[in-house]
Amino acid sequence: MARAEVLCIGTELLLGDVLDTNSQFLARELALLGIDCFYRVVVGDNPERIKECVRQALGRADIVITSGGLGPTADDLTTECLAGVFNAPMDMDEEVLAFIRELFASRNIKMTESNRKQALRPRGADILPNPVGSAPGIVWQLQKADLDGAGIESSYVSALGRDNPYRVILTFPGVPSELKAMWTETAAPYLARYYPAGTIWSTELKHIGIGESALAEKYAHLLDLPNPTVAPYAGRWECRLRVAAKAASQEEARLLAQPVVDEIRQGSGVTLYGEDDDTLEAVVGRLLTGHGKTLSLAESCTGGLITERLTDMPGSSRFLNCAVVAYSNASKVELLGVDAEVLNKYGAVSEEAALAMAQGMLKLSGSDLALSVTGIAGPEGGTEEKPVGLVYVALCAKGAGVEHYTRKLSLGNRVNRSEVRWRTANQALNMVRLYLLEPAALKV
Amino acid sequence: MARAEVLCIGTELLLGDVLDTNSQFLARELALLGIDCFYRVVVGDNPERIKECVRQALGRADIVITSGGLGPTADDLTTECLAGVFNAPMDMDEEVLAFIRELFASRNIKMTESNRKQALRPRGADILPNPVGSAPGIVWQLQKADLDGAGIESSYVSALGRDNPYRVILTFPGVPSELKAMWTETAAPYLARYYPAGTIWSTELKHIGIGESALAEKYAHLLDLPNPTVAPYAGRWECRLRVAAKAASQEEARLLAQPVVDEIRQGSGVTLYGEDDDTLEAVVGRLLTGHGKTLSLAESCTGGLITERLTDMPGSSRFLNCAVVAYSNASKVELLGVDAEVLNKYGAVSEEAALAMAQGMLKLSGSDLALSVTGIAGPEGGTEEKPVGLVYVALCAKGAGVEHYTRKLSLGNRVNRSEVRWRTANQALNMVRLYLLEPAALKV
Repeated sequence: MARAEVLCIGTELLLGDVLDTNSQFLARELALLGIDCFYRVVVGDNPERIKECVRQALGRADIVITSGGLGPTADDLTTECLAGVFNAPMDMDEEVLAFIRELFASRNIKMTESNRKQALRPRGADILPNPVGSAPGIVWQLQKADLDGAGIESSYVSALGRDNPYRVILTFPGVPSELKAMWTETAAPYLARYYPAGTIWSTELKHIGIGESALAEKYAHLLDLPNPTVAPYAGRWECRLRVAAKAASQEEARLLAQPVVDEIRQGSGVTLYGEDDDTLEAVVGRLLTGHGKTLSLAESCTGGLITERLTDMPGSSRFLNCAVVAYSNASKVELLGVDAEVLNKYGAVSEEAALAMAQGMLKLSGSDLALSVTGIAGPEGGTEEKPVGLVYVALCAKGAGVEHYTRKLSLGNRVNRSEVRWRTANQALNMVRLYLLEPAALKV
Repeated sequence: MARAEVLCIGTELLLGDVLDTNSQFLARELALLGIDCFYRVVVGDNPERIKECVRQALGRADIVITSGGLGPTADDLTTECLAGVFNAPMDMDEEVLAFIRELFASRNIKMTESNRKQALRPRGADILPNPVGSAPGIVWQLQKADLDGAGIESSYVSALGRDNPYRVILTFPGVPSELKAMWTETAAPYLARYYPAGTIWSTELKHIGIGESALAEKYAHLLDLPNPTVAPYAGRWECRLRVAAKAASQEEARLLAQPVVDEIRQGSGVTLYGEDDDTLEAVVGRLLTGHGKTLSLAESCTGGLITERLTDMPGSSRFLNCAVVAYSNASKVELLGVDAEVLNKYGAVSEEAALAMAQGMLKLSGSDLALSVTGIAGPEGGTEEKPVGLVYVALCAKGAGVEHYTRKLSLGNRVNRSEVRWRTANQALNMVRLYLLEPAALKV
């Protein structure tokens, strides 16, 4: 397999002034092409340090991809640093110059002297066209003699054959839309042609109700597989197993991964809530729609978070009629019809209050299901008996006798308010999911 | 100035499975401490490559910061790789072990054998406590002799004095909330104490109701200042001016920036809604509390988002009693007492419906103010007359004759559902802010 190294150039990246999204794009694209990437390096607009990073990258990868530093200003140094490493003269590319001139004319912007710089390229390099901006990149194929001449030592012996260039450098501007367009139109086909390796197919299997270490233990026998690989990741009160397979084509890779994916699907049962881009709320929404059930909510400490998550997806009006955020005791009594006696006797944060809120909401809304939450999100309001992080969730279903389920959560006082709310929302959403999927799991 | 290098460890970062937001956080924080950062390196879960990167970083920076690889599973390698570089034995930290045990017990989760690994630390390193998760990091001060012993050559001659550690390594887990909490509580004070370099003081002046280019034009004369510097950034339906000054101390830097900050505060008037960590919802919450007013909400297309944002801050029960998410027409009529005739005649998305919702909510809740939102968040449900992105907001205040204000927003159909909801929430919250600050601004 070919090996690439990504070099992101720009002081703004080191200062955190911009969030680097190019790296994630390039990483995914390289994986799809079946090209390994072992290092990504971010360096500022400093010629010595840029050149040092280029030399290091050429010493340990077949393909060096740079982003950033192709603009017209004085701190855009990428092209001249690359030329500098190889002592190559810079030639003006007349075709590119004409293209830039035309681009500026068409946009009715005055072309400045500094824009001429963007038409320069090191002798021997080809232009990597930019279909959406003024700064093209370069594709520069290099031979072993070029590296020897530049004094670059390489400990890395490529596994590639003689048909491949010894090394290649591809440069891109830092503007994400330009980088993406150049990658898709030119760079990706170029790399696929010269490095027709395999590709990686991957999927994320998302779990809830099981910890990362328990998940890793359960599937310990899969974690050392060479292909497909299986790796656990902790998320925000959920965890994921990533299954990835390498093969010559996406279809082959998927087939290779399938038995492992199937084994996990089988083994995880209801703790597996979704895959890839699925969110817990989207899964719950799909289940409600599929079962033709409507849901209403009575939220206290989550303050509308569960409703907000459920309604963030298109079509949520099909399963959600209404919700009440009953923050004060008075609103619990007046809006939801909770018996004031229940609040007096057990407190607003109690199983009894949660249940009364859900029952009240069920009646008020006429929906099939009602979910309620009451708890102490903190940082204040906790007592010894009822500490921050104590939350009660109740789910009621319409029908003879009103079927109901409750959960007590102890999320701990070391978790901040937003996390208490988020985790509560996940647990509450999961109760609805389990109710629709396998009510028996709720009775545990 | 001290020099840091950030090392992000995790194959998922190289594969693009997660977007790396830690790097931006660390970059900004280092800048605030006046610590240079010349390189950031991302490497996968491979022991040889991790060790190589650690050695390189120690050879060119005073401070090495790692993120990722502290979890309980077999591909979490950071701590053992660090120990490996220096041939240091790993000791079990009994205090950390007891803490992890307790954490798992309090969450009612079974602690697995693999979690014990998280209590290991290289001999000589101290624990960097993790207030929100099970994986602590380490702070490891190293002497020149340690590097010599490990065969690490350093071409870098630090400009720091003898009072500083020769090198220090700080490790953090990859989970952003944990990394941030550990940084803020322990690492930042530690670095500030050991590396009291010059520093950057900066503030973000957050604006709403004015665009980025208009803001840049208004303050064009400030944008080329050398120190303090002023830079505009576009946010999510808001924009910010960042004022930053460099000096020997925070106080000196702040004084240097003060005149510029004052000029902007003066010039921006009510378009400046807050500074630094202020959120629009927090500002509104503070104003409500300060004025001793209560607010209730009737949300339709925002689905609870405004309520959720307002209740995400501690103490929100002081100003928020309750809210209703009235998604269906039936719930607008039954819960909020909206006249069905209004919905029939003008439609649910109309100024009249918004007003009736706010008036109904005011009556239902008995609060001082009621805010309502109705609109078409998309992607479906738009018509030629009422396209996606059309939203009406109404604000009613209790009193003789019921004072009320309405706003029509046309957010356009090129904006996705989440953005329509977010922008609507910002506009609605800003109406409450303006009402409390300067009601005349609402009458425009």
